[in-house]
Amino acid sequence: MSSHGTTPHHAAQRDAGLSGAGTNLDPWYDLYADRTAGLSASEVRALFAVASRPEVVSLAGGMPFVSALPSELIAGAFERMMRDVGPQALQYGSGQGVPALREHILEIMALEGIRASVDDVVVTTGSQHALELVTKLFINPGDVVLAEGPSYVTAMVVFNSFQADIQHVPMDEHGLIPEALREAITRLRAAGKAIKFLYTVPTFSNPAGVTLSWERRLEILEICRSNGILVLEDNPYGLIYFDSPPPQAMRSVEEDGVIYLGTFSKTLAPGFRVGWALAPHAIREKLILANEAAVLSPSSFSQLMITEYLNTADWKEQINTFRGIYRDRRDAMLGALAEYLPQLSWTVPNGGFYVWATLPSHLDSKAMLPRAVKELVAYTPGTAFYADGNGRNNIRLSFCYPTPDFIREGIRRLSTVINGEIDLLNTFSQTTPLATIPLKQGIVSPPPNID
Amino acid sequence: MSSHGTTPHHAAQRDAGLSGAGTNLDPWYDLYADRTAGLSASEVRALFAVASRPEVVSLAGGMPFVSALPSELIAGAFERMMRDVGPQALQYGSGQGVPALREHILEIMALEGIRASVDDVVVTTGSQHALELVTKLFINPGDVVLAEGPSYVTAMVVFNSFQADIQHVPMDEHGLIPEALREAITRLRAAGKAIKFLYTVPTFSNPAGVTLSWERRLEILEICRSNGILVLEDNPYGLIYFDSPPPQAMRSVEEDGVIYLGTFSKTLAPGFRVGWALAPHAIREKLILANEAAVLSPSSFSQLMITEYLNTADWKEQINTFRGIYRDRRDAMLGALAEYLPQLSWTVPNGGFYVWATLPSHLDSKAMLPRAVKELVAYTPGTAFYADGNGRNNIRLSFCYPTPDFIREGIRRLSTVINGEIDLLNTFSQTTPLATIPLKQGIVSPPPNID
Repeated sequence: MSSHGTTPHHAAQRDAGLSGAGTNLDPWYDLYADRTAGLSASEVRALFAVASRPEVVSLAGGMPFVSALPSELIAGAFERMMRDVGPQALQYGSGQGVPALREHILEIMALEGIRASVDDVVVTTGSQHALELVTKLFINPGDVVLAEGPSYVTAMVVFNSFQADIQHVPMDEHGLIPEALREAITRLRAAGKAIKFLYTVPTFSNPAGVTLSWERRLEILEICRSNGILVLEDNPYGLIYFDSPPPQAMRSVEEDGVIYLGTFSKTLAPGFRVGWALAPHAIREKLILANEAAVLSPSSFSQLMITEYLNTADWKEQINTFRGIYRDRRDAMLGALAEYLPQLSWTVPNGGFYVWATLPSHLDSKAMLPRAVKELVAYTPGTAFYADGNGRNNIRLSFCYPTPDFIREGIRRLSTVINGEIDLLNTFSQTTPLATIPLKQGIVSPPPNID
Repeated sequence: MSSHGTTPHHAAQRDAGLSGAGTNLDPWYDLYADRTAGLSASEVRALFAVASRPEVVSLAGGMPFVSALPSELIAGAFERMMRDVGPQALQYGSGQGVPALREHILEIMALEGIRASVDDVVVTTGSQHALELVTKLFINPGDVVLAEGPSYVTAMVVFNSFQADIQHVPMDEHGLIPEALREAITRLRAAGKAIKFLYTVPTFSNPAGVTLSWERRLEILEICRSNGILVLEDNPYGLIYFDSPPPQAMRSVEEDGVIYLGTFSKTLAPGFRVGWALAPHAIREKLILANEAAVLSPSSFSQLMITEYLNTADWKEQINTFRGIYRDRRDAMLGALAEYLPQLSWTVPNGGFYVWATLPSHLDSKAMLPRAVKELVAYTPGTAFYADGNGRNNIRLSFCYPTPDFIREGIRRLSTVINGEIDLLNTFSQTTPLATIPLKQGIVSPPPNID
């Protein structure tokens, strides 16, 4: 971690547990921008490198199960693309994205109740890049981003990289709590803070696996509208539901106050890096300019591959296939948790990729991770999903990538670790104080392959 | 253009000719970050939309002639990729890029004298995104970027979007002038400015078409080294030489003080959006973190397509083919300029895509552009390539995309426009003052498809 800043904001970041290793070796140490202090290497990155060994069951990453995608569908899209629009696929495109793809994106969003103009869609390099561009457009150093607690880790990395002040709003099993949002706005405004937007994954949230209820969607939109706060609705998982469709998107209700982010990473494949933003008119113009500055244009090759896939494949049926696969895996995980780890509590997702589990309160999930990896199972510690050091006794368990058998085996191994920890604590708790954790912990940056 | 800032820096940007249209209609006007004022829509964008009609000969854009790429090479790469690494191509990858591709990138850079470790290469979404990431890492508002005058337009858009203070250093037919660089550093330091890096396209520069001599490369590296200033060497065109190879890359001499940017956009195809940065060790670590925050990982699909292409195609011969095509087009342009516009002066590029021409001093190339488009020829006005309003009587002429016949016809049309302007000025010059141009003009943002 390097920094040359001397502002209080900056110093606070540096004190927040971020590593200072290596700064003396960097001859360019004095040249970095202040914001670069917000970019930190993950404290668990080295462990995740170990965890990618094949003998480890990884419940840590967010990799979709792309092997379920028939390769002949991809090959067919490629052949038609090269035959019909080959030179266009190899060339620069527009900063807004391929018009035919944007038309398809309207069809996809209509499945969640969204009506929009093709002019207001901006194709991006994954929805991650839309997060980056929106943050670049709106965040001055010190501005507040309201974010669910817990929140998607790499969104927080982006917010930090633009020196945002991330303020969490608590959630429960029905998602963000409206009353808590009101209180946070009042408190932060009283402290003179500029609140720019509310960042939320309302449907099958990452990492909590919960879904914001319809009534709360309306209430939260009203709170944000009346307070002049934008809603950044990030919806990568909405179409990956298991039991019944989730409530319609927040953007289906409110056109002017919501920037909606979508992606092909979960319904098709992340390797193309194609996502999009649907934004109010004036903001969309600025997004296009920011997109052009950042990448000139999103990949024509990727965009036209997806366009041809959507033109000809039964993509809705393919999404159904993904639903079935991930439903089986969720069921395997919930079953294994009930069998092996009944002393934990966890969320029951109706879609998406993740279960959020709560350990007995004296366990520290980050400290426990090396022991888990030694037992050949990996997860993501809860602190990764908070900007304020919370989440110490939470873990995120991903069921998207391993098969049901591996998920069961992973949870079995995890139970060994957790039960061992509990035994250890019981043995020592009457003679030795529990290990204490610094209250403020820096955000850990993402393990690879989390979206 | 929207802004809510009230700082002098900000107000200066707003006064610098940037349009204020539409701000009253944007309900989110007050929420934008200060830096967003630096993102402006091109004043000539509407014209370029007209200029993309097929009857217009466009000498404006920077689109490579991708039709010269045999489609069977692309198809072969696709088939091998899907057969051998299909699931990997569809999946997330690392934030640094595919290792096998980075190995190939070392081979490519070796052609220009660069020796490096594969660990220090970071794959990006075109080299444009490397420009964005480097700027994000280094530029605080008000920091100075030294840039050639004239300089690549969309690099300046990036610098402006991070509120850099762009200071031009003059060039001549041998590239950047070392003595002028020394003077600029002395002057800016005396004014208390923080200079972060020198941005240069030393080989076949965009837009000037000139190449920095070997002696000057050494001298400029020494000036930057002794002043603690990074060199950002942007080299998209180095392998596209016509007569003899250019001097080796600046990075071949200096490892610690140069961030080198490369791309596949000119030697293969821009539609993949794959470029790279080669950076000193400590900076490279931060680049990877910034890349992960921005896009999680560059497209695996694009990277593995290119890897397979490089594995099996005779890519050096393909670059030779491109050289021959662009050489013919340069010759057509130089010949037509000599025939139709002998009253102009222009640079004679030994590679790359561009000729930089100087009109008689009383002509205004931006004011003339609508008349040129009416005559069915388009170019880029010189002011696009300066942050300080210079370039009024310059134009950039691209010879990369149109065939030689169209280039000749385009220059012929241009001569009609220019001669008409000269006649008009001669007629009125004794009775009417010449139209005056505001000295400070905002940077115009890029026309589409310029790299």
